[in-house]
Amino acid sequence: MAACIFCKIIKGEIPSMKLFESEKTLAFLDIGPLSFGHALVIPKHHGAKLTDIPDDQLSEVLHVTKKIATAVGAENYNILQNNGRLAHQEVDHVHFHYIPKPNKEEGLGISWPTQKVDKDKLQKLLEEVKAKM
Amino acid sequence: MAACIFCKIIKGEIPSMKLFESEKTLAFLDIGPLSFGHALVIPKHHGAKLTDIPDDQLSEVLHVTKKIATAVGAENYNILQNNGRLAHQEVDHVHFHYIPKPNKEEGLGISWPTQKVDKDKLQKLLEEVKAKM
Repeated sequence: MAACIFCKIIKGEIPSMKLFESEKTLAFLDIGPLSFGHALVIPKHHGAKLTDIPDDQLSEVLHVTKKIATAVGAENYNILQNNGRLAHQEVDHVHFHYIPKPNKEEGLGISWPTQKVDKDKLQKLLEEVKAKM
Repeated sequence: MAACIFCKIIKGEIPSMKLFESEKTLAFLDIGPLSFGHALVIPKHHGAKLTDIPDDQLSEVLHVTKKIATAVGAENYNILQNNGRLAHQEVDHVHFHYIPKPNKEEGLGISWPTQKVDKDKLQKLLEEVKAKM
């Protein structure tokens, strides 16, 4: 993936503020942070979306995210992984954001447009999704 | 954790639209969804924040989330885990949201207030966090 900026960071062709590195995982500070302490945890395996990454290449991601969250020590924080442009993904290599939320203004801004969904429709969806799992 | 609604769901004391269950993981449809297909994946181990859950109790979370994302099949989607009231957490038992983003109006609403941070300040933070990891 010659053009992928995160693959270039993994290869060391672009510098990063590296927090953690192992055979399959890399973590570094976001240099355009939403709040102080904002970090990214990525599988080294290239793939655009979560569903593109093999399970074994994801096995350390949450452990490393926990390590960073513990070390930074923010009381409030979000873990976010975006898939697709509509969902706010900007780099097409899976990345998990750790974003401290120190106050209302800084950190991730969230809006929560809850829908009213018919129970029968949900039950039908449940059966359909379960059948595919 | 007698008062925890998710612990009650785990115990079967409250019904849920269950998608997946194993010894340490449970997944079910959110009944107040942000979009059709919105699901939750939770470790059965009770803990309010990500940093409260032992690594081994988190080992299936992303695999199960992937399974659901593949089965629902949304092109755009967000994975979100909120920690603390300020960060929009409403139930104090760790849960990962899988939220399809079918269009601008439905699904998770995100705002991204990027900060300008001095490189020297970031470098200092990097050293401090690394020292704690």
